[in-house]
Order: sequence, then C-alpha cells, then structure tokens
Amino acid sequence: MAIQSFNPPTRTLMGPGPADVHPRVLAALGRPTIGHLDPAFVAMMDETKALLRGAFLTQNLLTMPVSAPGSAGMETCFVNLVEPGDKVIVCVNGVFGGRMVENVRRAGGEPVLVADPWGRAVDPNKLAEALKAHPDARLVALVQAETSTGASSDVKTLVEIAHDHDCLTIVDAVTSLGGSELRVDAWGLDAVYSGSQKCLSCTPGLSPVSFNERALAKVKGRSTQVGSWFLDLNLVMGYWGPEQKRTYHHTAPINALYGLHEALVMLQEEGLENAWARHRRNHLALRAGLEALGLELPVPEAERLPQLNAVRVPGGVDEALVRARLLAEYNLEIGAGLGDLAGKVWRIGLMGYSSRRTNIMLCIGALGTVLNDLGHPADTGAALAAVQAALAG
Amino acid sequence: MAIQSFNPPTRTLMGPGPADVHPRVLAALGRPTIGHLDPAFVAMMDETKALLRGAFLTQNLLTMPVSAPGSAGMETCFVNLVEPGDKVIVCVNGVFGGRMVENVRRAGGEPVLVADPWGRAVDPNKLAEALKAHPDARLVALVQAETSTGASSDVKTLVEIAHDHDCLTIVDAVTSLGGSELRVDAWGLDAVYSGSQKCLSCTPGLSPVSFNERALAKVKGRSTQVGSWFLDLNLVMGYWGPEQKRTYHHTAPINALYGLHEALVMLQEEGLENAWARHRRNHLALRAGLEALGLELPVPEAERLPQLNAVRVPGGVDEALVRARLLAEYNLEIGAGLGDLAGKVWRIGLMGYSSRRTNIMLCIGALGTVLNDLGHPADTGAALAAVQAALAG
Repeated sequence: MAIQSFNPPTRTLMGPGPADVHPRVLAALGRPTIGHLDPAFVAMMDETKALLRGAFLTQNLLTMPVSAPGSAGMETCFVNLVEPGDKVIVCVNGVFGGRMVENVRRAGGEPVLVADPWGRAVDPNKLAEALKAHPDARLVALVQAETSTGASSDVKTLVEIAHDHDCLTIVDAVTSLGGSELRVDAWGLDAVYSGSQKCLSCTPGLSPVSFNERALAKVKGRSTQVGSWFLDLNLVMGYWGPEQKRTYHHTAPINALYGLHEALVMLQEEGLENAWARHRRNHLALRAGLEALGLELPVPEAERLPQLNAVRVPGGVDEALVRARLLAEYNLEIGAGLGDLAGKVWRIGLMGYSSRRTNIMLCIGALGTVLNDLGHPADTGAALAAVQAALAG
Repeated sequence: MAIQSFNPPTRTLMGPGPADVHPRVLAALGRPTIGHLDPAFVAMMDETKALLRGAFLTQNLLTMPVSAPGSAGMETCFVNLVEPGDKVIVCVNGVFGGRMVENVRRAGGEPVLVADPWGRAVDPNKLAEALKAHPDARLVALVQAETSTGASSDVKTLVEIAHDHDCLTIVDAVTSLGGSELRVDAWGLDAVYSGSQKCLSCTPGLSPVSFNERALAKVKGRSTQVGSWFLDLNLVMGYWGPEQKRTYHHTAPINALYGLHEALVMLQEEGLENAWARHRRNHLALRAGLEALGLELPVPEAERLPQLNAVRVPGGVDEALVRARLLAEYNLEIGAGLGDLAGKVWRIGLMGYSSRRTNIMLCIGALGTVLNDLGHPADTGAALAAVQAALAG
C-alpha cells in the first residue's frame, strides 16, 4: 500500500526537548526557500548572528548556528579545540558530560574525569584539585544545565578556576540558553554550544555556537588538521565568518534557519532577562504543584534547573505506564530518566514556549489524575490550587 | 533598531541547489513538532526509510537520512568506511571529488587520485589502471553527478571495475537521486549518499544514505573507533537502525524530516522512472532554448546531466552582472561556475520541482532578454519557440 502524507498528532511537549515550538516559528519554517548565497539570505545570516550574540550576551564575532543538532555543536567545539595528546579535564555529572569524554577521546585527546553524582552540580573544589593534579591540562569542559538530571552548575565559578590554571573552557549550554542566566562575555567562556529545540522554542536541528578570540586563536594555530571537514571552523568561517564575501562550504539548512531567526526575534521581543524570569516563575509553580501531589524533586533546591525538573517516581508506580497514558489520553509528553536515572525519575521540561501556565495546569492536572487512577493517592485539586497560588504570588 | 521577522523574497531556484521546494513540502515543515521518540514519529521514521529504499532502489536495511546536509552524508561514508592507513582511490572530475580526497585524508586514509578534466565523465579505463597499479586499495570513491560541472559518470561500470578488484565503493548521488537513473542494488553500490535539496524538491539540511551488508560489515568490524561521535553509524543505528526499540543518540530534526517524508511521498506518487523521464524531457527543452539563444553546453552530450546544465558564458559578457540582473529583475537564481569553471560557465539547474516547463520558459525568456539588453544578440522569440517545440516533440 502506498505511504500517505504524515499528519502528526498535536502534542504538548514537556520532556527534555524538543519543547513546544511557537506557532510563529512553525509559520516561518514554511516560507519560500531561497539560495544559500542569495543577498537576502546573507542579510538574514547577519541578523541571526547579531540575535545570537544577544542571546549569548557576547560580542564574539564567531557566533553562528552549526547546521546540525546540538550533538554536532558539541563535536564542533571538541574537534576544533582538542589536538591529539591534549589533556582535557571533563566535569561529568550526567549523560552529557559522559558524551564530552567520548568526544575528547575521538579527537585524540586524553580526558581526565571530574566525577560528581548524577543529580548534583559540579563541585568547584574537585575541579580545582584536578587542575592542581594535572598542571599540563589544556582545556576544561563542563555542562551548565545537565538535561539528563536537571542539575545546574555554577559556570561562572568553574570557568574562573579553569582560567586560573590557564585552561580554555568548553561549556555545554544546550538546555540553558534562553532559559537561565548565561553570560558568555562577562563570565569569560571560551567556547560554548547550545541547541535550537530547548528554551529557544524552535525546532531541533541547529546548534548555536560562540567562540572567543582565545579559542579562535587555538583553532587557527593548530599543528594538526581538524579531523572533520564538515565541522572544521577554518572552513566554516568562510561561509559564516565576519567577511562580507561568503564562500560556499556546505548548503545551509535554509528553512530551519528561518525558524531559528524567528525564535530569536521573539526572544529579543520578550527580553532575555524576562525570559529567564519566566522560566524561574513557572518552575516555582510547577514545583508547588508537584509537591502538593506528594512528589519529590531529588535535585537539591539550590542546584535545580528551572527549565528541566527531575521528579522521583513514587514507589509502586509503573513510570512507563504513566508516561504512556499521559501521551495517549492527554497528548502530553514528559521525559523518562536517562542513564543512571532510568526508571527512577521523570523529567518534566518547562522550556521556551513550553514554559507557560497552561502547560503547568495540564501537566499537574493530568499527572495527578492518572496517578490516582493507578491507585496512587494524590490530591489533584489541592495541587492545582497550589499552582494557582504560586503563579499569583 | 530591533530586528524584525524575516520574509524572504519568492525566487525561482534554477541554480545548483537548493531547487524550488514544492508547496506541499513547505506546508509539511510547519506541522506540529512532536518528540523524537514519540511512537507516531517512530512510525514516520519507518515510512521514511521505506520511501528512501524506493528512491535508491535498494533493500538495504541501513537506509536513512543523516541529520545534516549532504557534506555530512559524505563525511558519514568516509569516517565510517576509512580506517587510518587505508588506501582509497578517488575519481576526481570536479569540486566534489576533490572534497572526497579531503575526507579521505582527514579520516587518516591515503588517497590515490584518478583525475579527469572538469566537465567530463570519469574515465573507466583510468580507474582500472589505478586499481592495477594499487592492488592494496580498499575503497573506490566517485561522484555520479558532478554538480560543479554538470557531468554524469557511468556508475554501473565504475562500480563493476572496483568490485573486480575487491574494493568497496562510495558513491556521491547528491544531485542524481530522483533526477537520473540510479540503481543501488542492481549496480551493487556499497555506500551511497545524497542530499534533500536537489531532485527531491525538499529543503536543504538532510542527507539520505544507504549502506549494504558488505559496507556495514566493514563498519562493524573496524579495528579503530570512528573519529566522529555524531556520525558513527555504530551509534546512529541504535536510533535509525532496524531494531524496534529506538535508543536516543541525538535529537532528530523533526520538522525537516516531515518535509523529506512529504517529498518522498510525492516521488512515490509520480513514480521514480517517471521523475527520471521528466528531468530528461525538460533538459532537452532547456537545451533547445539555450542553443537557439546561441549558447553552448560545454559538457559532451553523452555525459550531460539532465538536472544540471553547464552553459558557457559568451565572450564579452559579464557573467556576474547577468546573474545579478536575473535575480533582481526576475527573482530568478541561476548558478555561477565553481573552482576551475568559475567565471567560465553558468550552471542552470532543473532539479525536482524546478524541473517544470514554466521554469524553462522563464529562464530562456529572461536570459535572452537580459543578454540582448547587455548588447549580446540573442533571438529570444526563436528560443522560446524551440522550447515549445521540444516540449511538444
């Protein structure tokens, strides 16, 4: 039988990403495709870079979206900044720190792990000790917002420590950009990457990155060629770089970039600090509802991400069945645990356009009702009232 | 001043790609985003793989779109199939063969070049000689449709020669898939990659690939780890592979995949061989018009691609000015020459949805008129009549 056009269901996306995409962004995706060297497109590229500088709070000239998902943004940082034999200190407190270790190895570097428990922030003291023990380290890599656990690390402090030991820094801001405080220039981050599908309310597929002059000097002064042709910034800069003349490198994903541009225009309209405050406010409301349902948030309060909430699965509850029922009965997606936390937590995202009060009401209402239906007592009415009170307060 | 939403001009895309995107594909891009592990999305992934098998004419289980543009599809083939020290014979008759050489080097392989003139097909005799001279070669890489020149090579014969010498083959089908004859299984191609933005009438950003069992055995049996984490098929297969259970690797570009699915549904509706015939028919009509304008097609007739037509720039004509005027006055994009052919040719694409008679009339009419206006005599009326006659004939 012939395959038909695909018409997806309309979901509410409250997992670890993708988040709900704003209708304005969806509309932008369908605008007419133009050429990747069209003067109109080149002007849009310049605007996109300016808007990204605003979101990252940086003046870095090399601030651009990599033409692939966040994992490729991560790889862009590592293949360009790590040379064979380089010792790289990687702070690991979840899946994405572990992925960084893999990236270091494949780039020929020597990773040194600074391990913290899943669900906790990176401990600055451990980083300082590791740097003392490894004075030949060249780079420090860390995740600001561990999407696998919901823990937030103190990037400002960690980057300061790295710089005290004359290391460059690579920071994963996939889930933080647009959702919680991130100041690339003020905090001195050397290389940072993010994703389009989290707090920017855009579709997945693009990875904004920013490199400062120190990082760029390392890229330009490498003694070995970058292992990847597609991600070699020395080549990519010919297309996305500061020069007026744009040289073909690869064909940019035109319509996906329309979407990102629109998402960044919306962030500019809202104001970056207002967006951070919205994520914080809605997090507190969700937390109030979850706690009123009798559920626990295992990440210590001071280390919690507002945009990604780990929730402990209560004893005796089939966590996969709860997620399946929320999806089937309410078109609501929440996330499962990953890695060490698989089966132990749900991950409830309040990212970008998903971070709004209607989503919180739906999530608390549906989760409480399904838990009750499965025999786990929860006072859904009280929980919704707690949400309402938190939003009003 | 605040940056506003971007509203692109409506162009007719007759360059080397992206081609015109069908309105049904643009509409699909804007459908609601769902999760990359949503059961509805997983079902769509299975359909996409089946549709791609139909387009590639293969039963290969590993047939899937890489989550990035064609250059990343190329890199997927090379980083997975080349191990350090492997000798790889690369047929080079344009930009993309040259890029393959770069890919071999960065994967640690030793490239051996088989060079043919730009604008000509790859010479099978030269490949056979190179294989005799290098009996230790492990791989042969070649481009079916050289987008930089408009030359088509005889993949079936070249792959046979490679197999006679027990080499695996990597074939670039970026511009050929959906536009001219390509039979992955019947011709025995081991690894092949393409792009979404050419004859599939889709937006740029995805790269369909297909690997047969021989190629997969090489990937699985490597003695060294793949240099790229993002493109390592041993990992990607956990998400896109034949298993029922899909494991998170990276976040797939959901909406871009909606577009590709719709484009492939449309190709299925038209019929693959009908699409090839359409590209051929429209090529002949464009050729008739160009020749009636007094323009020359430098690629020998038997080696011409129907979907990408190199046209010699007449003496005394400012080629960049012609392109600029077509764009500014008629919203018509045609391509410049690349590499060795920069300044010497235009590249006129008739790919996918761009391969239709209205586009041919616009192109011949506008090109003839602008050439006349710039003082280069051309009988535009006669050229349009020649197009009409070719379409009727």
